[in-house]
Amino acid sequence: MLKKIIPAIDWIQNYNKHDLKGDMSAGVIVAIMLIPQAMAYAMIAGLPPVIGLYASTIPLFIYAILGSSKHLAVGPVAMVSLLVLSGVSALAEPGSEEYLSYVFLLMFMIGIIQFSMGIFKLGFIVNFLSHAVVSGFTSAAALIIGLSQLKNLLGINLDTGETIFHTLFEAAQRISEINIITFLIGIGSILTLLFFKKKLPRFPAPLVVVLVSTLLVYFLNLKDYGVKIVGEVPIGIPSFSLPAFNIDSIVALLPIALTISFVGFMESIAVAKAIAAKEKYKINSNQELNGLGLANIIGSFFSAYPVTGGFSRSAVNYQAGAKTGLASIITAILIIVTLLFLTPLFYYLPNAVLAAIIMVAVFGLIDIQEAKHLFKVKKMDGLTLLITFIFTLMLGIEEGILIGVAFSLLVFIWRSAYPHIAELGYIEKTKVFRNIKRYPEAKTYKDTLIFRIDASIYFANVGFIEKKFSDEMSKKPNINRIILDFSAVNDIDAVSIDELEKIMDNYTSAGIQFLIIGMKGPIKDLVQKAGWNEKYGQNIKHPSLQHVLQMK
Amino acid sequence: MLKKIIPAIDWIQNYNKHDLKGDMSAGVIVAIMLIPQAMAYAMIAGLPPVIGLYASTIPLFIYAILGSSKHLAVGPVAMVSLLVLSGVSALAEPGSEEYLSYVFLLMFMIGIIQFSMGIFKLGFIVNFLSHAVVSGFTSAAALIIGLSQLKNLLGINLDTGETIFHTLFEAAQRISEINIITFLIGIGSILTLLFFKKKLPRFPAPLVVVLVSTLLVYFLNLKDYGVKIVGEVPIGIPSFSLPAFNIDSIVALLPIALTISFVGFMESIAVAKAIAAKEKYKINSNQELNGLGLANIIGSFFSAYPVTGGFSRSAVNYQAGAKTGLASIITAILIIVTLLFLTPLFYYLPNAVLAAIIMVAVFGLIDIQEAKHLFKVKKMDGLTLLITFIFTLMLGIEEGILIGVAFSLLVFIWRSAYPHIAELGYIEKTKVFRNIKRYPEAKTYKDTLIFRIDASIYFANVGFIEKKFSDEMSKKPNINRIILDFSAVNDIDAVSIDELEKIMDNYTSAGIQFLIIGMKGPIKDLVQKAGWNEKYGQNIKHPSLQHVLQMK
Repeated sequence: MLKKIIPAIDWIQNYNKHDLKGDMSAGVIVAIMLIPQAMAYAMIAGLPPVIGLYASTIPLFIYAILGSSKHLAVGPVAMVSLLVLSGVSALAEPGSEEYLSYVFLLMFMIGIIQFSMGIFKLGFIVNFLSHAVVSGFTSAAALIIGLSQLKNLLGINLDTGETIFHTLFEAAQRISEINIITFLIGIGSILTLLFFKKKLPRFPAPLVVVLVSTLLVYFLNLKDYGVKIVGEVPIGIPSFSLPAFNIDSIVALLPIALTISFVGFMESIAVAKAIAAKEKYKINSNQELNGLGLANIIGSFFSAYPVTGGFSRSAVNYQAGAKTGLASIITAILIIVTLLFLTPLFYYLPNAVLAAIIMVAVFGLIDIQEAKHLFKVKKMDGLTLLITFIFTLMLGIEEGILIGVAFSLLVFIWRSAYPHIAELGYIEKTKVFRNIKRYPEAKTYKDTLIFRIDASIYFANVGFIEKKFSDEMSKKPNINRIILDFSAVNDIDAVSIDELEKIMDNYTSAGIQFLIIGMKGPIKDLVQKAGWNEKYGQNIKHPSLQHVLQMK
Repeated sequence: MLKKIIPAIDWIQNYNKHDLKGDMSAGVIVAIMLIPQAMAYAMIAGLPPVIGLYASTIPLFIYAILGSSKHLAVGPVAMVSLLVLSGVSALAEPGSEEYLSYVFLLMFMIGIIQFSMGIFKLGFIVNFLSHAVVSGFTSAAALIIGLSQLKNLLGINLDTGETIFHTLFEAAQRISEINIITFLIGIGSILTLLFFKKKLPRFPAPLVVVLVSTLLVYFLNLKDYGVKIVGEVPIGIPSFSLPAFNIDSIVALLPIALTISFVGFMESIAVAKAIAAKEKYKINSNQELNGLGLANIIGSFFSAYPVTGGFSRSAVNYQAGAKTGLASIITAILIIVTLLFLTPLFYYLPNAVLAAIIMVAVFGLIDIQEAKHLFKVKKMDGLTLLITFIFTLMLGIEEGILIGVAFSLLVFIWRSAYPHIAELGYIEKTKVFRNIKRYPEAKTYKDTLIFRIDASIYFANVGFIEKKFSDEMSKKPNINRIILDFSAVNDIDAVSIDELEKIMDNYTSAGIQFLIIGMKGPIKDLVQKAGWNEKYGQNIKHPSLQHVLQMK
């Protein structure tokens, strides 16, 4: 029981020395990766860099104890950071005191929402998010995030919060204002990062770029040439404080809190499940919501900003040998050490380097292959991806994801409204009945039409099914018997049972026999409740087509 | 080709004497029924009674020529009248000149919308309206319409446009203001109508009630005792005039125009299809939209208000022997004769009698049996009906129908997200594989798990399917082979193909063989595009379980 509430008990009890080496090495590697990322992502969110570091301490401890994944690397991530900016910048000026207090409250709300979803077992809703939607949405968000850093990369002022088209247009207009040294540092960093990503993916290139550029700025005094730097990062660990509760703020933040709760959970569960499948343990999505929720709730008391499990850091954590939550605890300890002693080192770090780190990270998420693949296999799925992508770019992150979900569900409804209905014929050689379109040798009967309905029947497709019968019947005037093969009908609703009843009665009164064969158990149960056994008796009882057509 | 545009050509060319008797008798009977109904429904819509008669002339001619049903009786109906009131009374005072001009414009817009839907072949959308939604919505609308007449029945003033709870509450408060004579006339009419409806359904009771009550009011001078009467109904047929076009009005009327277009079409197509099925001819839903659309467009030039095919009048028309659209033309001619010569007779007709006619007509539409039936067969369908009913009563007609449609589609999605998955065992006696839950004698294998997935697979249920495998696998540690029976999988999307691929690869890398058998043609085509033939080869090629398990 206690293990259900605190999953960490499991690995603490069974901890052995062999795990320690992997956990140590993964903890250190993730920390090296996390330090520049945390500062960079805080910058995306419109926050001082140190808030990113704060968010990489307490929440990591909490998740390591209470989360259900042993490999998930929790902390600041790019997508959530962008959502924080887009949601809170409508209420206060990024960087201001007021902005900060909104962000802490937002984090608390996200924690409460996620924790409540876990308690009420609502983790299943993530199932309704098609991978096509996630992929389109991620690619668009990556573009938005990447281009949001253009101003830091070029060293110019650009309005944030507008569409990317606006950003690109404005950047083009201000091309003459570019700070060349900033731009060279940025481009140099991007090329360096890309080079190591390709050639030596395990090399901690971001940290090296951070160190080299900081030294360059310091010794060449580049600050005087207009290169924007991070500046003073406060020393010390965050102290406890409650978010400023206020009903108006809560109402104003609710939509963005819901979006982040959902998007953050989705990112987290996807990577946690992928690793768990490889390691053959199970992720409970509701436990996962509880763990993330508490990490956010408690984090909000220690000046953090919303966290979730990150794609790339979790993958690095796993590949670097993490075995248990201890790896994350080690990461958190190293970040605390950094906060206590090393923050002065970041004074001369240029913003352009953080922008370069962000751009390289997020542009890697743009997945054109997936779009091509989906278009090849099933056009509608490719279209779902494309529509989500376009609307996210044009209207924004929350709107894009909502439109994507709605569209993907409508596609499913649309498909089930026009089900596959096969007319069957008899194949003498193998003594089976098959679709006459795929097996032209199948023999049809002069007086009998046989249909196999390849679908669950419900109100939206029963009309289509009826139309199919009448279309075929009008082509073949000699038919005096219709047989429906129900072996592929997996479900039926009461409304369609009534409609089928009307259809059967109409044909019967026109002198055409109407048989249904091969009903599955659950369907038999339903039509019995509708009184079909008394009404149709033998006409719906035949187990197979062979059985009916040998009776002749 | 011309026959497609003007379906009437078909019956005009083949007209024979035998049809004439039926058409004549049906035309007369429907006219007798329509005269009081048309005035009563106009009253529901907040219009002078004569507008109801106008709406029973030109539109009937147009539909008879251009509609695809030979039996549909077009004209004013209760539900559309209520929608007109609820939509237009927000913009102008019912009965005023301004109100009238809004109504004519609304009718024109409805015509354009319906006609365009027909041209763009959007008639299919009516399929997405579950009968459970229609039934719940109709019962609620019947209650609302019936109670909207309470004020005429009791002879008191009540605010319109509020919920029925408000109406009932206000009526109870004003119980002392009831005009006793009005009330007696109303109750007497209701009892008379109910009596004949039950005992002599073919007797033209409404007309008789109208005549008797008019004579009573005239001779006993009941007007002086506070009995409200219809008053002067203008003589003569409507003249041609264009609706007052105005962009602001069009924008304001658009939501209600869309609702009426849809609801009117739905009512019309349902009754047209029911009769056509009995008479073995076909209704083209797009042609139907064209016919109704033009009837409304042209009607709007002749001071009519929105029309559609009515349930009860169409049934009477059919039962009275109508064979072709000529029956409707005869009805229209009789209404014109009435307008030219007989309207002075309606001067002393009490409003309470029209209210009684409305109440008896609509309360017959409340269908409690249907609700019980749906609850018995499938609870969710019953719940859909109930939710539509409750929300229509509480929030209004448009809101109720939208909530009903959304709920019914969500129910479908919900069901398909948790599909039936059967674990199969072998039955030696009959040599088939069956669900071990329904056939306890089915033998399972020590090293092999067999699942039959009874569903189309898509993004929202592939996670559930995966969970089912892993749950069962964790219970049975000796399994080294999983076989999926795909014979009931009717469709699959590209996203789930990818997910299945991951699942198969995970199991394969864990040393567990993964086979899929019995794929249908359309599924085979899809997985081939995803490259499965090269990747999995024989593992997905077996045609049947027998085939695999005899290979051992």
